[in-house]
Amino acid sequence: MGSIERAKAMFRLYYATGTCALATHIALEEAGAPYEAVPVDFASQAQRSPEYLAVNPKGRVPALVTESGTLTETPALLLYVAQRFPHAELAPLADPFALAQVQEFNSYLCSTVHVAHAHGRRGARWADDAAAIAAMQRKLPAAVTECFELIEHKLLKGPWVIGDRYTICDPYLFTLASWLEGDGVDTAKLPRVIEHRRRMLPRPAVQKAVSAEGTQIG
Amino acid sequence: MGSIERAKAMFRLYYATGTCALATHIALEEAGAPYEAVPVDFASQAQRSPEYLAVNPKGRVPALVTESGTLTETPALLLYVAQRFPHAELAPLADPFALAQVQEFNSYLCSTVHVAHAHGRRGARWADDAAAIAAMQRKLPAAVTECFELIEHKLLKGPWVIGDRYTICDPYLFTLASWLEGDGVDTAKLPRVIEHRRRMLPRPAVQKAVSAEGTQIG
Repeated sequence: MGSIERAKAMFRLYYATGTCALATHIALEEAGAPYEAVPVDFASQAQRSPEYLAVNPKGRVPALVTESGTLTETPALLLYVAQRFPHAELAPLADPFALAQVQEFNSYLCSTVHVAHAHGRRGARWADDAAAIAAMQRKLPAAVTECFELIEHKLLKGPWVIGDRYTICDPYLFTLASWLEGDGVDTAKLPRVIEHRRRMLPRPAVQKAVSAEGTQIG
Repeated sequence: MGSIERAKAMFRLYYATGTCALATHIALEEAGAPYEAVPVDFASQAQRSPEYLAVNPKGRVPALVTESGTLTETPALLLYVAQRFPHAELAPLADPFALAQVQEFNSYLCSTVHVAHAHGRRGARWADDAAAIAAMQRKLPAAVTECFELIEHKLLKGPWVIGDRYTICDPYLFTLASWLEGDGVDTAKLPRVIEHRRRMLPRPAVQKAVSAEGTQIG
C-alpha cells in the first residue's frame, strides 16, 4: 500500500504470519474495508516490546486500530467488520438465532480449537516444567484431530460453515485449518474440512491476504 | 418452576452447578426471559450420556434449547439473549465499536481465562500422563492470577465491565470470578474484581440464578 493510500486507511491491522490474525485480514478484504496491515515480528519477540504492548497489552495478535480505539480477539473483530460493512453481508446481523450460530462456531474455534493448537508451542502458559510441555506436544495431533472431527461430522454444514451463505465463520475456519499439517493431523480423516479450505483459496480476498502475509497453506 | 409455567417456557437451559452456565442463567433472569433450567449431573457423567449428547454433541454445558434449535458457547448465548430481549438493554447492539468491546471482553473470558481455569481439572484434554496433568495443576493459581491481573488493571473499567453500563460482560465476569478461591488465587491482589463480584451479588437476577443452582461464591 502506497503512502497516499496509507494516509487514507481507516484501520490498522497488526498481524503475524501463521497466526489467527489471517481471519480478520481476509474479512477486511471481503468487506472492502480501507486498512493497512502491519506485521509484528514474532521472531524478535516484537509482540512483547513496549511499543506493541502500548497497542495491545495482551502482547498478542491480531489487534485492530480503529478511529474509535483498538480492538482485539478474533470473534469480536470478525463481528465488528461484519457490522461496520453490512453491505458485504458477512453475518446474519438481524437474525438472532442465525447470528448466534455464527458466534457459536467462532467461539468454539477460539476457546477450544485454537487452544488445542496452542498447546503445541505455547505449553509454557499452563505448565512450567519441560516434561509437561513435551507431554502436551505429544498429545497435540490427537487433541486437534478431536476438535476437527467434530467440525467435520457435526458443525460444518457445507458448502460454507453455516450452510449456503458465506459468513465470518469461513475465513476463521480456513485460518485454523491451515495449521492442520503443522500440528501433525492426518487430513485424510477430514475430507470436508479440506474441501472447504480448497473452496476458500481462490477467493480474491483470501488470495490477497494470504499473499500479503506469505501464509503457507497445507 | 411449576408445571404450568414449564409448559409455557420458551427456552430450556442445561446447566451444571459451578460451571460457566451460570452466566447465561443470570442473563436470562436479567432479560425476564421465559425459561426452564435443567441440571446436568456431572457427578454421574450425565453430560456424556446418549440423551445429553443428543442435545449437545460437545458433552458440555451450557446448552440453550430454543424454538429454532439448540445453541451452545457462552459468548454466543449471551449475545443471543441480549438480541432476543432488546428492552433489557444488555448489550450496545447498534454501536459496532461498543458491541465489539463487549465481545472482546467475553472472548477473552472464554478463550483465555476459562481455559486457564480448565487446566486445574481438565488437564487430560491436553496431555495424557499424570505428571503433566499435575504440573498444570501446580501452575493453576499463577496462570489464573495472570489473567485476572489483566482484568483488574486494564480491562475492568468500573463500576461495570465496560463502564457505566451493565452488560452481558458482567454476569460472565461474575461467574468466572466465583472460581478464584477454588483455584488458589490470592484475591487480595484483585480488589476491583472482588468489588465487582460484591456489586453483582444483590441483583435479583443474580440471587435467583445463584440460589437455583446452589452456587458457592468465594
